[in-house]
Amino acid sequence: MPDVRPGRIARLAERLAGARLDALLVTSLPNIRYLTGFSGSNALVLVTSGQPVLITDFRYATQVAEEVGELARVTVEPLSLWTGLWRKLNELPAVVELGFESAQLLHRDYQRLLDAGEPWHWRPTFDLVEGLRERKDPGELALIERAAAVATGALGELLPRVHAGMTEVQIAGTLEALLRDGGSEGFPFPTIVAAGPRSALPHARSSSRVVEQGDFLLIDFGAIIDGYCADVTRTVTVGRASDRQREVYAVVRDANAMASRAVRAGMLGRDADAVARHYIGERGYGDAFGHSLGHGIGLEVHEAPRLAKSADGPLPPDAVVTIEPGIYVAGWGGVRIEDDVFLGPAGPRVLTAFSRELIELV
Amino acid sequence: MPDVRPGRIARLAERLAGARLDALLVTSLPNIRYLTGFSGSNALVLVTSGQPVLITDFRYATQVAEEVGELARVTVEPLSLWTGLWRKLNELPAVVELGFESAQLLHRDYQRLLDAGEPWHWRPTFDLVEGLRERKDPGELALIERAAAVATGALGELLPRVHAGMTEVQIAGTLEALLRDGGSEGFPFPTIVAAGPRSALPHARSSSRVVEQGDFLLIDFGAIIDGYCADVTRTVTVGRASDRQREVYAVVRDANAMASRAVRAGMLGRDADAVARHYIGERGYGDAFGHSLGHGIGLEVHEAPRLAKSADGPLPPDAVVTIEPGIYVAGWGGVRIEDDVFLGPAGPRVLTAFSRELIELV
Repeated sequence: MPDVRPGRIARLAERLAGARLDALLVTSLPNIRYLTGFSGSNALVLVTSGQPVLITDFRYATQVAEEVGELARVTVEPLSLWTGLWRKLNELPAVVELGFESAQLLHRDYQRLLDAGEPWHWRPTFDLVEGLRERKDPGELALIERAAAVATGALGELLPRVHAGMTEVQIAGTLEALLRDGGSEGFPFPTIVAAGPRSALPHARSSSRVVEQGDFLLIDFGAIIDGYCADVTRTVTVGRASDRQREVYAVVRDANAMASRAVRAGMLGRDADAVARHYIGERGYGDAFGHSLGHGIGLEVHEAPRLAKSADGPLPPDAVVTIEPGIYVAGWGGVRIEDDVFLGPAGPRVLTAFSRELIELV
Repeated sequence: MPDVRPGRIARLAERLAGARLDALLVTSLPNIRYLTGFSGSNALVLVTSGQPVLITDFRYATQVAEEVGELARVTVEPLSLWTGLWRKLNELPAVVELGFESAQLLHRDYQRLLDAGEPWHWRPTFDLVEGLRERKDPGELALIERAAAVATGALGELLPRVHAGMTEVQIAGTLEALLRDGGSEGFPFPTIVAAGPRSALPHARSSSRVVEQGDFLLIDFGAIIDGYCADVTRTVTVGRASDRQREVYAVVRDANAMASRAVRAGMLGRDADAVARHYIGERGYGDAFGHSLGHGIGLEVHEAPRLAKSADGPLPPDAVVTIEPGIYVAGWGGVRIEDDVFLGPAGPRVLTAFSRELIELV
């Protein structure tokens, strides 16, 4: 496979030149992984017009050599990454105007930049790398598709094993073991298994609640392949569904289908959101859909672009986004149906192939 | 059980008065959980001399009511938490001098504070809540002990199932299902299962590498009970150990034992680190122990205090810290043995009850 990293770094360097910056200090770990391939948990990267500099610590000495190779000049720092940064900057006298990632740098570390003083001038930047990451190349898309296949495959194996009397945590554990068996490197966020009234908590964690006959069971989970995430939600009933459960389910299912068909590159994020929101509102549940429709997905499980009321930018071509409408009725229960959708040149393509019809576990 | 939160908030309010601050904006989620009980992923808290203010979003409307109750004035914001913050601050005219958490606030959000302008004056603060969290109360200690029991119990069930031919990811998945069965709410960090030469990567992720006869198998993992973490590492051999494996293992085992016996409240973090480091150095492996000896553990799997060469503060009474010496030989393999130790009034007490002798899986 061709090495995609030099092209990414070249595109970023163009953006820096356009912003009249000599260099960008990259502190976001997913951005560092995107640019250099390094997947460790502690690093700084300096992107200049020349070879990038990567600074990490001893724990990653072997890993960084394997992952980064000759792409960057790698320094393994015994004490603090920042000590390494100042030394490297002193070796680069032409680098004076520097950008940092405003949404990825803690105030404490911003203060370090200010304290370093002359000759360096530091300017906040926004989304320089995140903007590149919105468009997925074929290699990235293939990894997200594999993660989606692992996720939906595990869900298919899980559901026949679920029954009343299990706890949410047991169901989560069973699902996670199936995800691991399928090859998932881990879990992009804590698996949500929420039963009965707890399904009305859009961000419940799995608890020791025992699943009962008649419960909605909301399952929101993900898989990771080579760093790339899939994110899926399905809601089923344990036992036969009531009429009200069927009605609410159908509204969410239809909102999901409409939005998944309508979403495409070039559409404003708020217009994509409105497709589902308008329909759910028409059906009388507008107040019960309190979160946004979706978000980009890739090296992070939540990344740009956003599909939300306040998202006034166009969705980029070749983005992968979630479509996840929901209806939540406090004290009663909730339904969310979430898919990952690729915004390709031929229109939207759903990557998470799993039934969206109501499944009753009987 | 008595509600410990008002006492925590009162101690924090004292610290604020001492720093001549009218309020502290708390942006760290573990700090928010410690003070208010709220375990969601999006919130701001303002601690003043009166009732705290908590701002979160719709997704947590039900959960925040259950978890926080009357402890704080809760606002559920439809759009941005920051909008809610400015409105609340406008209702508190006596609040002018405000602290923020320098190590917990992104530059982007710091800029919002500056842009809000008069009458507010914002000052960086450090470790105000983290300092309180270092000392564990009996309820916190009990939760960490339960997490430690879940972790060691799962490891005990795992090891008889491990054999050559499994992949690292399969072993991680089996362990995680056992942790879930034991009641763990999730995983405080991505489970590390690293075999053979990969055990020399101190922060490897689990990979698709097949475990072979003769491999070191390093397993670093955790459990979570009610938000509180345990963190354990053991290293075993798959099949009989070689003489060199035995020798390296024994050095790490003895360094772990010495440090676990010697560590206590009042000792400097660097002196605790030196106990293990000096011994490993004497045995000729000084360069192969490249990370620090340990860290505090609680609501976060890495928190204050630190046990490291550069840690010049005393270890607080009633802290829980990890003791995790290691030796890593690139291309050959590595050993780490990690326990969680409570620094109680009667001296150190190891919470992770699991053999530290070399286990050979034959």
